[in-house]
Amino acid sequence: MIGLLIVSHSRKIAEGVKELADQMTQARVPIVAAGGTNEGELGTSADLIADGAAQLAAHGVDGMLVLVDLGSAVMSAEIALESVAQPYRLSNAPLVEGALIAAVEASVGADLDRVAAAADQTRELRKIDSNE
Amino acid sequence: MIGLLIVSHSRKIAEGVKELADQMTQARVPIVAAGGTNEGELGTSADLIADGAAQLAAHGVDGMLVLVDLGSAVMSAEIALESVAQPYRLSNAPLVEGALIAAVEASVGADLDRVAAAADQTRELRKIDSNE
Repeated sequence: MIGLLIVSHSRKIAEGVKELADQMTQARVPIVAAGGTNEGELGTSADLIADGAAQLAAHGVDGMLVLVDLGSAVMSAEIALESVAQPYRLSNAPLVEGALIAAVEASVGADLDRVAAAADQTRELRKIDSNE
Repeated sequence: MIGLLIVSHSRKIAEGVKELADQMTQARVPIVAAGGTNEGELGTSADLIADGAAQLAAHGVDGMLVLVDLGSAVMSAEIALESVAQPYRLSNAPLVEGALIAAVEASVGADLDRVAAAADQTRELRKIDSNE
């Protein structure tokens, strides 16, 4: 199964995304929140991200989709993931929307390509019918 | 000034988005988090959203951009906003990314159309240079 690594500058956002995705998938998908700094402040931590990836690896995932909130989280993630043995993909998808859809896709056993593609498609999501 | 109303199924996500946007704008933009149910569980609450809109109104905003996580939050928001006197717009933008960019745009005095457009443009955001 594919696991998700949720990288945010905010611990609350990362934890909230995990909780919501866990609820939507009845916690069938390994999801790790890596938000904020080591002290829980706003920012990112390569250490926390690396720990998260190690947790997913220990869970035996076949691959990881890594979702980030802002581009400035990408460098932390890239450093953190250098020594990850499993296949992984950094996603361009919107963090919350992408993670939720990716979790649903992973929960039905989709491979990394399909999980990543499902996340990417949330860019096109229309939440509101009436405007635009 | 335009204010932002952050509607999420998760209180943590909504609060985290507010904290991050407040940091990016040095809290110059009125932002209210309306996440979770009245009890703080996962879900949405028209009451909380209405309270949030009232807080923004009390702050004297010229308009409100309302960002949501999932389409299923839209109905709660629409019910909650029925009696709002200020101009408001429900946004199709990704919650986290849209809110952060909208906050920056609002902080420089942009009007509701421009704040909403800036949020919408985050659909096109490329966080990762190397893939896709």
